[in-house]
Amino acid sequence: MLNLERVERIREHGGWLERYTHASVSCRCTMTFSIYLPPQAEHGPVPAVYWLSGLTCSDDNFRVKAGAQRYAAELGLALVIPDTSPRGAEVPDDPGYDLGQAAGFYVEATQAPWSTHYHMHDYVSRELIELIEANFPVVAGVRAISGHSMGGHGALVLALRNPGLYRAASAFAPICHPLACPWGVKAFSAYLGEDRSSWRAWDATCLIEDGATPLPLLIDQGSGDEFLAEQLHPEALQAACAARSIPLELRMQPDYDHSYHFIGSFIGEHLDWLAGYLQR
Amino acid sequence: MLNLERVERIREHGGWLERYTHASVSCRCTMTFSIYLPPQAEHGPVPAVYWLSGLTCSDDNFRVKAGAQRYAAELGLALVIPDTSPRGAEVPDDPGYDLGQAAGFYVEATQAPWSTHYHMHDYVSRELIELIEANFPVVAGVRAISGHSMGGHGALVLALRNPGLYRAASAFAPICHPLACPWGVKAFSAYLGEDRSSWRAWDATCLIEDGATPLPLLIDQGSGDEFLAEQLHPEALQAACAARSIPLELRMQPDYDHSYHFIGSFIGEHLDWLAGYLQR
Repeated sequence: MLNLERVERIREHGGWLERYTHASVSCRCTMTFSIYLPPQAEHGPVPAVYWLSGLTCSDDNFRVKAGAQRYAAELGLALVIPDTSPRGAEVPDDPGYDLGQAAGFYVEATQAPWSTHYHMHDYVSRELIELIEANFPVVAGVRAISGHSMGGHGALVLALRNPGLYRAASAFAPICHPLACPWGVKAFSAYLGEDRSSWRAWDATCLIEDGATPLPLLIDQGSGDEFLAEQLHPEALQAACAARSIPLELRMQPDYDHSYHFIGSFIGEHLDWLAGYLQR
Repeated sequence: MLNLERVERIREHGGWLERYTHASVSCRCTMTFSIYLPPQAEHGPVPAVYWLSGLTCSDDNFRVKAGAQRYAAELGLALVIPDTSPRGAEVPDDPGYDLGQAAGFYVEATQAPWSTHYHMHDYVSRELIELIEANFPVVAGVRAISGHSMGGHGALVLALRNPGLYRAASAFAPICHPLACPWGVKAFSAYLGEDRSSWRAWDATCLIEDGATPLPLLIDQGSGDEFLAEQLHPEALQAACAARSIPLELRMQPDYDHSYHFIGSFIGEHLDWLAGYLQR
């Protein structure tokens, strides 16, 4: 693809961890992503799991800290790991860690100054998929999605907004109801404006309440998570699913916190569960 | 133990990842270490593997990047992860990344200004072991050691200098012959002085040449390691072992580099191999 440049290639678990930059049409800036291609990809296309990271992260955190590549190599899965926002000197930012660069919230910003670049929904759910499926040995159309915290919100929202795009979605400590938490209110006020009715289309709990097509969902949440009470609200999503009799596997994991040590403890189970939906 | 303070406790893979600080007699400063206690440690003492990290690292890198806790939980091993040097405002340092703080080289410094604090050999091989075995559910006397790069050098040297202290030693991309590489010459000149005859007691290849008692040794080395040709010299250690008919399992891993992606790819095999020597 035009402008797709490989900037890193690292041998790992018998496969290759690669990093690319490219000119993004969605975000109007240079975007970076990483992809792990398991050993099986040398013999033919493999299914892909997209991973969305949380606040303050780039494409680097997950690939370094989660230990996911071992499981991907065992299961024959590609891992596609985008950045968490548009980046660069020309991209608006905010001094807070929870708005602007590294905090794109996977929405389509409608408000200045964010609306020029902050189109992470379109980037992840359309542009990146097209780029990956045109340029790498992945099975076109066979995808799942997962993520952590802000990226858990992103995984749930992208899957619920785009029926059929992903066969299953999982999340670690996701922001389940951004309308009702400080992180979500701050970000959505900036990116989407003060008309809160427009926010519902970017909130997993509201999407369920408003009739979104369900898909297989798995959520792990640590009971020792320091952000659980104020920011995450899995009980709201659980209630919305229950009201529509939608199955939701929400597992409370005793004592686990919000860190990558928590993700690493269960990423193998998530990838194994997602892989079950990625048989051709 | 006096001054042993727990500063972090994180649930991981069913066990606990903990971090402590304590006043070190060996290093005459506050030292930090991490320990992973697997689920099995709740029911009785478990064997311990000590991990020594490389240049620029603290106790944090391995616990975050290697994915080792999963395997330790499976195998029932404690992981003990010391820092790589004495630390603090009162501890001499050097502007280079390869000398001073985060570059202790696991030796006993004899030269000013380093000799006041830089006693990482005594710290790791005596003080830390005493502290761990007195305060944690580990089996006294049942230990193995591993490490990466400078820490691989440390693992080999500590094991060869102290017969019986560790039942087996493994290393990832170790500095096998510091006398013959720029990292080693710089560090040993500073810590040990210009009399190079004193350096041989801190060089794995020379220790083998000079008659050290062998023990089971496993080394993985990536062929794509950017430091291989100039700094690591596994062929020197291999030749020294061959001259004494000492078994050395040295595995060249095609394309792997010097990073934690390499360590993560093989740490499971190393822990499994070390565990084989840790049956009571």
